[in-house]
Amino acid sequence: MSEKVKFEKREDLKQKPDPKNLGFGQYFTDYMLSYDYDSEKGGWHDLKITPYAPIELDPAAQGLHYGQLVFEGLKAYKHNGEVVLFRPDQNFARINQSLDRLEMPQIDEEELLEGLKQLVDVERDWVPEGEGQSLYIRPFVFATEAGLGVHPAHNYKLLIILSPSGSYYGGDSLKPTRIYVEDEYVRAVRGGVGFAKVAGNYAASLLSQSNANEQGYDQVLWLDGVERKYIEEVGSMNIFFVENGKLVTPKLNGSILPGITRKTVIALAKELGYEVEERHISIDELLESYDKGELEEVFGTGTAAVISPVGTLKYEDREITINNNETGPITQRLYDEYTGIQSGKLDDPQGWRVVVPEY
Amino acid sequence: MSEKVKFEKREDLKQKPDPKNLGFGQYFTDYMLSYDYDSEKGGWHDLKITPYAPIELDPAAQGLHYGQLVFEGLKAYKHNGEVVLFRPDQNFARINQSLDRLEMPQIDEEELLEGLKQLVDVERDWVPEGEGQSLYIRPFVFATEAGLGVHPAHNYKLLIILSPSGSYYGGDSLKPTRIYVEDEYVRAVRGGVGFAKVAGNYAASLLSQSNANEQGYDQVLWLDGVERKYIEEVGSMNIFFVENGKLVTPKLNGSILPGITRKTVIALAKELGYEVEERHISIDELLESYDKGELEEVFGTGTAAVISPVGTLKYEDREITINNNETGPITQRLYDEYTGIQSGKLDDPQGWRVVVPEY
Repeated sequence: MSEKVKFEKREDLKQKPDPKNLGFGQYFTDYMLSYDYDSEKGGWHDLKITPYAPIELDPAAQGLHYGQLVFEGLKAYKHNGEVVLFRPDQNFARINQSLDRLEMPQIDEEELLEGLKQLVDVERDWVPEGEGQSLYIRPFVFATEAGLGVHPAHNYKLLIILSPSGSYYGGDSLKPTRIYVEDEYVRAVRGGVGFAKVAGNYAASLLSQSNANEQGYDQVLWLDGVERKYIEEVGSMNIFFVENGKLVTPKLNGSILPGITRKTVIALAKELGYEVEERHISIDELLESYDKGELEEVFGTGTAAVISPVGTLKYEDREITINNNETGPITQRLYDEYTGIQSGKLDDPQGWRVVVPEY
Repeated sequence: MSEKVKFEKREDLKQKPDPKNLGFGQYFTDYMLSYDYDSEKGGWHDLKITPYAPIELDPAAQGLHYGQLVFEGLKAYKHNGEVVLFRPDQNFARINQSLDRLEMPQIDEEELLEGLKQLVDVERDWVPEGEGQSLYIRPFVFATEAGLGVHPAHNYKLLIILSPSGSYYGGDSLKPTRIYVEDEYVRAVRGGVGFAKVAGNYAASLLSQSNANEQGYDQVLWLDGVERKYIEEVGSMNIFFVENGKLVTPKLNGSILPGITRKTVIALAKELGYEVEERHISIDELLESYDKGELEEVFGTGTAAVISPVGTLKYEDREITINNNETGPITQRLYDEYTGIQSGKLDDPQGWRVVVPEY
């Protein structure tokens, strides 16, 4: 298992970007991990680290027509010269759930994790060390078979690409965001693919996201597709509410993405002694709670966004300001603990950090 | 407008496939139409006919990650040496609706239609003439911008590829199909993207389609995502019921694809003197109608499937046989009229056929 994967060296290395202006997902490193699937050649084959370069796709590649495209997002951090991944096993487990939902072939989670470690080892000079910075890791799988019949494809490609990144929203990652509660468009519905990390879910969100941006909001908060009243998730984050010192977050119901940051924050909060409730939360209940003065803090969680305070919620003709548009104490504490463990500044009793060895 | 588009000649032409074994969407012609979009270079540019060949995509191309991918399907027919398109204006109008829903740039419908005619003219030798055969035309647009932020892309590519094809289901296109009514998974919901021809809708359907195939059914019939009782559409077709001589089909509600064959069949049926009703139809109502002996015929409509009789419907623990598993007289009549007009064997009073000129 810890055998070295094939390595195709490139001639010239890229110039690294200015660490002060990384942005998110804009720069890519010198290499990527590549893996091919052919149902008639025994499945996955040809795992290799190869120069980051354009891929050739037949114009009839099924992924481009019928959307068999799944992805994951995780991060590597550097601290005291050591490079670590954060809970990568969770991402490889989830990509298998997404693959399963789209009738795409399963991957060997341990084999891919080993391949990822070797890739990140090769690229360790690309892992930025600044506050809020990390190497964003994007595994994705897409159907490459050429043909226009609608059926599960026989050929796929998996790639893992790496992007040194700053905070997702740019600037201070603890600047409270402004959220628009979407009451017209719907992201997902039970029985659909909302729980899976698939390309189509994101395409479906863009119009709503643009409308929100035009009105001066950063992100959209989705309501359920059936009753249009239960809170689901934000565009790129799960959402948490602090009511009377207790954390409340929507229960996973099949149409919400089971966020790994969500899961980790729930575990961390419980460890720190907070009560956490996962349940249905209607938007009306939330506004009532606000009116009674019980809604103390709101924050979102996600790999890209980490833990991000919400300062404003707009629903229909009402706009409410949370905690005076400041980062609340519980949000701040969770952020400090979470990023402390991630980056290696704090202890890691759960073993969430996975060190990337030098091969 | 009828200026010639740029033409890049290829050295060697492909060998054409055996017309007896075309299948559907398996072979592609020598050329494709290509068009690029760059929001910073004034939009769409560089419309050209170019050799059919693999495309180069950055691994971070947004279409592969966030599913900004829309497509269309239409057909060209050859009759008495003349090549015709069938209602192509409808497809270009619909692709603009799909593009709009995914925040992708609009195309100039007339310009693209003109480009398509020139492409089909170049490839007229590829248009098959056999019974049930046609040149399947696949316009599609995908986001090419490299970057992992979730936002509408600034760069896109539009391609039109051509595939000489036989009937979609293989063999006799009037062999009644077996349909499984899906009661677990959901294709789309109001407020989502069900009305648009976007890649993600098809990816979401594959698991259900495979389950149905394993149980011996050809296709899935979707119910609405909210109440799970109203009939929406079949995987690759809209659906029609004949009750007491009257045609009934689900009303467009935002989650059903507004099929061009559906629209054409409705117009045609009315012209032939049939009553046509577009309304909500619950699965229970349909079964009741069957029990009363009023459900005479069922058929699906779609560009690929044309008009396809349904012989069997399976819902929960019930399986019903329609019209003794034979093509009914109204289905047959509509099929004959529709394919007659398409292929040029019958008159075309509505002007649905568009002749491809020799440039």
